[in-house]
Amino acid sequence: MAVYTEVSDDALRAFLADYDLGDLVAFRGIAEGVENSNYNLRTTSGDFILTLYEKRVDPADLPYFLGLMQHLAARGVSCPRPVPGRDGSALRMLAGRHAAITTFLPGVWPRTVRLGHCGPVGEALGALHLAGADYATERPNALGPEGWAPLLAGALADGGAAAEALAPGLGPELRDALARILDAWPERLPRGQIHADLFPDNVFFLDGRVSGLIDFYFAATDLYAYDVAVCLNAWCFEPDVSLNVTKARALLHGYMARRPLAPAELAALPVLAQGAAIRFALTRLYDWINTPPGALVTRKDPRDYVRRLRFHLAAKDAGAYGL
Amino acid sequence: MAVYTEVSDDALRAFLADYDLGDLVAFRGIAEGVENSNYNLRTTSGDFILTLYEKRVDPADLPYFLGLMQHLAARGVSCPRPVPGRDGSALRMLAGRHAAITTFLPGVWPRTVRLGHCGPVGEALGALHLAGADYATERPNALGPEGWAPLLAGALADGGAAAEALAPGLGPELRDALARILDAWPERLPRGQIHADLFPDNVFFLDGRVSGLIDFYFAATDLYAYDVAVCLNAWCFEPDVSLNVTKARALLHGYMARRPLAPAELAALPVLAQGAAIRFALTRLYDWINTPPGALVTRKDPRDYVRRLRFHLAAKDAGAYGL
Repeated sequence: MAVYTEVSDDALRAFLADYDLGDLVAFRGIAEGVENSNYNLRTTSGDFILTLYEKRVDPADLPYFLGLMQHLAARGVSCPRPVPGRDGSALRMLAGRHAAITTFLPGVWPRTVRLGHCGPVGEALGALHLAGADYATERPNALGPEGWAPLLAGALADGGAAAEALAPGLGPELRDALARILDAWPERLPRGQIHADLFPDNVFFLDGRVSGLIDFYFAATDLYAYDVAVCLNAWCFEPDVSLNVTKARALLHGYMARRPLAPAELAALPVLAQGAAIRFALTRLYDWINTPPGALVTRKDPRDYVRRLRFHLAAKDAGAYGL
Repeated sequence: MAVYTEVSDDALRAFLADYDLGDLVAFRGIAEGVENSNYNLRTTSGDFILTLYEKRVDPADLPYFLGLMQHLAARGVSCPRPVPGRDGSALRMLAGRHAAITTFLPGVWPRTVRLGHCGPVGEALGALHLAGADYATERPNALGPEGWAPLLAGALADGGAAAEALAPGLGPELRDALARILDAWPERLPRGQIHADLFPDNVFFLDGRVSGLIDFYFAATDLYAYDVAVCLNAWCFEPDVSLNVTKARALLHGYMARRPLAPAELAALPVLAQGAAIRFALTRLYDWINTPPGALVTRKDPRDYVRRLRFHLAAKDAGAYGL
C-alpha cells in the first residue's frame, strides 16, 4: 500500500498548473512502495510518477536524492528523472507534503528472481556507481554501520522481550554479531554514491534487460562494495534462505564488468555482506516490534535476514560467493 | 491496497501469450479498490487493467459481470470492456485466480465531490440503466433487502456487544430501522441491471465530464431507483454528514434527463435511501467487527451511514432531496 496522502482534484490541478505538462488525463495510486505515496500521473504530455514524501523521508535530504537522480539520468542511467516546474524547481509542495514529479520508466520488476536477472542487475549497479562518481554532494548513510547500534538498542528497548518472543536468543545473537561486524568493518574501501536498497521491486526489466532503477530514497555516500553486498543479500538467496552461488557469481561478474572490485573489496565481501544482512534484520526487527496492529504496511519477517547473516558470518572469503 | 495476489513474471508472460496484445511493457499494482487485485498493464498494444478476482467474488457471477460490461460498452457506456483471449474468452485463470483483462479508461475520480460532479454522475447512471435494459441475464442482489437481515444477524452475532462498543444503542437502532424499512419496501418499481456501488472512487471525470464508470462487481438486477438512492448517499452528503440538497437535486435532475423517474419511484425515494444507507451501514459494521487487526484493508466507520440513515428516516417525501 503506497498511498498515505490523498490529493484533492483541485489541489492536483493547481499543482500541475505550475508545470508545462499539458492537461491531466489520469491519476491512480500505485500499490508498490512503503515509504512514500506514489501515483501514476498521465497528462497530455505523457506518463509520469507523482511522489509525495511521507514522514520517514527527511525533507533536508530531498535535494540530494533528486539531484542524484537528475545526475544519473543525464549520464545514461535508467532512473526516474525529476521534472522541474516552470520555475525550474522539481521539489514542490502538494497536500501538505513535499512532492516531485518524475519520468515514468517501462518494465516489470521480477516477482521471482531468475539467474538471468542477476548479471544485468550487477552491471546496472556498477554503471550507477560510475555515473555517480562525479556527483559532488554527500549524504551520510544513516542506515550504515554508525546507525546499527542505535537501531539495535531501539529494537531491544523493552529489555529484548519482543525480540525474544519473535525468536529465542535473537537479541544476544544480534548483539554479538554486531560487535563482530563493527570490529572488522573496512574503512578505507572506495566510496561514492550508492543506492543502498536495490531490491528486486526497485529494478524493472524489459526483454531481459534492466529498463529502470527506482526508489533512490535510501541513497547515500558510502562504500561501493557495501552496495554490492546489499544486492547479494537481496537477489541471490533462494526462498529457503540458502545462497544460490551461481546467482552470486553472475551478479558479481556483472558488476565487475563495469567496475572491477579491488582485492581489498573482494576480501571484505563477507563482512560487508554481514553488515548488509544485519542492517535489514535490524530495520525489519524494529518495524516488526513497532508497527501497530491495523497498520497498512505489511511487516517483513526479520528472521529471513538473520538467516542470511548466519551464512555470511560463516563465509571465509569471496569464494563463498562463487569467485 | 488492492494487490492481494502477486503474479510471477513467468505466469504473466504465459497468460499474455493467450492474447493478441503484443509484448509486455509495464505492470504495476493499483492502490485503489479493496475487493480484488488490480494491475495497470501496458503492452505494445496499449494500456489495460488486469484484475484477479479474490475470495469475495463468486466465480459463478463473473460471466454476468463481464457480460454486462461488454454489453454496456457496446452501447456507448464508458465502462471497462473485457478483452478476450485468442479463444474468444475474456474470463481466464492466472496465479490460481479467475482473471480478466479490461480496457483502460482515462480520468480521475473525485477525492472531493463538488456540485459539478453530481449532475453528470446522475446522467451517467441513467444512461447505464437504459443501456442495460436489454441485457438478458439476471443476478439477484445478494446485498439487497433480502440480504440485510442476515447481515445484521452476523454483525450482532456476539449478542451485539461489538456494535454496542462502537456506538451505544447501535444494535437496537439498526434492528428497529431495518424492520421499518423492510415493512415499507416497494416491490413493484421498474427494475433492471444496476451498478449498486457507484461511489466517487468508481467514477472517473475528465474536463468535467464522466469518462469512466468502473467496478461492476456488485452489479445486480434490482430496482433502478434503488441505484439512484445509493448515489444520493454516496455523492450528496457533506463531510459533516448533512445532506447537500443542491447536490441531491442536481444528481436527480441529471438522472431524470436520461431516465425520468415515475411517480411511484419518486414517492419511494425516502425508503429506498433508507435501504441504501442501512446496506452500507451493515456491511461496514460487519467488516468493522470482523476485520482482524493488522489487515491490509482500512475499515470504514459504519457510523457515517447510520447518520445518513437517520436523515432518510426523517425524510417525508422526495422534497427532502430537493424535488
